[in-house]
Amino acid sequence: MKDKFYAYIQNLQDQICAGLEAVDGTTKFREDLWERPEGGGGRTRVIESGPEGSGVFEKGGVNISAVHGKLPEAMQKMFGVGEADFFACGLSLVLHPKNPMVPTVHANWRYFEMYDTSASLSTGSPKIIEQWFGGGQDLTPYYLFEEDAKHFHQTCKTACDKHNPEFYPKYKKQCDAYFWNSHRNEARGIGGLFFDYCKANEQMSMEDWFNFVTEVGDSFLEAYVPIVERRKNLEYTPENRTWQEIRRGRYVEFNLVHDKGTLFGLKTNGRIESILMSLPPNVQWVYDHHAEAGSIEEKLVNVLENPIDWI
Amino acid sequence: MKDKFYAYIQNLQDQICAGLEAVDGTTKFREDLWERPEGGGGRTRVIESGPEGSGVFEKGGVNISAVHGKLPEAMQKMFGVGEADFFACGLSLVLHPKNPMVPTVHANWRYFEMYDTSASLSTGSPKIIEQWFGGGQDLTPYYLFEEDAKHFHQTCKTACDKHNPEFYPKYKKQCDAYFWNSHRNEARGIGGLFFDYCKANEQMSMEDWFNFVTEVGDSFLEAYVPIVERRKNLEYTPENRTWQEIRRGRYVEFNLVHDKGTLFGLKTNGRIESILMSLPPNVQWVYDHHAEAGSIEEKLVNVLENPIDWI
Repeated sequence: MKDKFYAYIQNLQDQICAGLEAVDGTTKFREDLWERPEGGGGRTRVIESGPEGSGVFEKGGVNISAVHGKLPEAMQKMFGVGEADFFACGLSLVLHPKNPMVPTVHANWRYFEMYDTSASLSTGSPKIIEQWFGGGQDLTPYYLFEEDAKHFHQTCKTACDKHNPEFYPKYKKQCDAYFWNSHRNEARGIGGLFFDYCKANEQMSMEDWFNFVTEVGDSFLEAYVPIVERRKNLEYTPENRTWQEIRRGRYVEFNLVHDKGTLFGLKTNGRIESILMSLPPNVQWVYDHHAEAGSIEEKLVNVLENPIDWI
Repeated sequence: MKDKFYAYIQNLQDQICAGLEAVDGTTKFREDLWERPEGGGGRTRVIESGPEGSGVFEKGGVNISAVHGKLPEAMQKMFGVGEADFFACGLSLVLHPKNPMVPTVHANWRYFEMYDTSASLSTGSPKIIEQWFGGGQDLTPYYLFEEDAKHFHQTCKTACDKHNPEFYPKYKKQCDAYFWNSHRNEARGIGGLFFDYCKANEQMSMEDWFNFVTEVGDSFLEAYVPIVERRKNLEYTPENRTWQEIRRGRYVEFNLVHDKGTLFGLKTNGRIESILMSLPPNVQWVYDHHAEAGSIEEKLVNVLENPIDWI
């Protein structure tokens, strides 16, 4: 399963980068290969055009990695287990468009295996104690276009429904709960899907989970690119841009204060630049800033404070 | 002691704000009074001129607060105690100058009391279980002027030496250790003083600690203002400004990922805008950015990676 899923995300990275380069029109991804001293490594692909560039994406990354070795102590604690060996691979992406009318997007699909260390020492082949999938995709607009929110969620729902009609409502709810900036009492964005610890059970074999997770992965470009196409040439003012940069501050707050994936990476010797590629390029913090009553900015804040059903 | 120290920081806030307004020349602090639903409140003073303003300080705050009530669970865990009542007051300040040649500064002085809840219920007057002072001041330059670093540290040392010749080396070392961005393997800035849990012992009564902490508080303007005066009119390039904004990103990373005070506030229903006034106004994250070999920017990075003795 691990080889099969890693082959899938390698191919998916190629597809997604090609799709994004096509919609960007000018900027190309640069690639950095890296190795993890303790085992494994990754292929980081970053796109950066900057605020003055002509491309759509001011900054973003589409990264894959596959790491293995002794389970770090921080992870032992997180999973409530003792010493073990592990393998983890996944694709993570974040895209920060320059135009405030185009939403930021995040997605991640990952697979995890944990082995009984003693068994692998005695028999020579590792015994899998646990294996699971996790991931999802979610949208963070700066200006709310209901049409876009519905399209994104409908694409998520269509992918889910092919596997189980209960998945979309369940993982949509989990997404709203996970990407919650509790210190601000608001969501990071308008959500999408979030699932974790997807393990074999009576309904779903690991093969079934593989089919589900790759279905969601395959839906990403369809969920996001039409939104980019619709909004990338809209005009915007310096005030729109300021609002975007202030909202990006909330994105930074979530990723550095609450996001388990980011904190996990920072505390377990991950490659810092690959982890923090998720941070937006230009950000503002303004003291006690609030959207004006009745403004289109406030319309966004209202749905962030009270997540709604888009379908 | 708590009334005496709170009176001190009220007065110190006035003095520091007046001193900073004088060196800024144009921008004044605005004041927000706030109340904590669970008990107490604060007086937040924020200065904001923005990147286009004519003042020295692009953004900053000099805040005091005094809060009390039931010790929140997160604090019980932090201090390794059960249910208790508490009182805490302090002054916190952060100043982000616009000119990259002027360093950012942070300072904090605080006092804490914890009470035996059962004793206070039976006798009507609370029994203090623990009381301590904490605080310090530290400098975060974007360009390194050795003269400034030496002046700041010398002022810290002079204040310390009046009380105990061992304090400066001890608290300077603690400052380097505390403001360490472990995920970057570098210090946030060039340090200063950091002390915590200063409790009565054979050498120092609480009165002695009060005298020490207020000595450091009184030294702040002397430590910082001459540096601002020397650098505030230096010319700088857009490239200097970009470097400053990228380095401010590291400041954000420290405050949101590692700083116990910030995380404590965010997780215990503190006033968010007063806590996050510490975040810089304009910030950049650039993928895999490094100072050029042999540049003045690299000179700064070298002392951040390997903190040195300035005296």
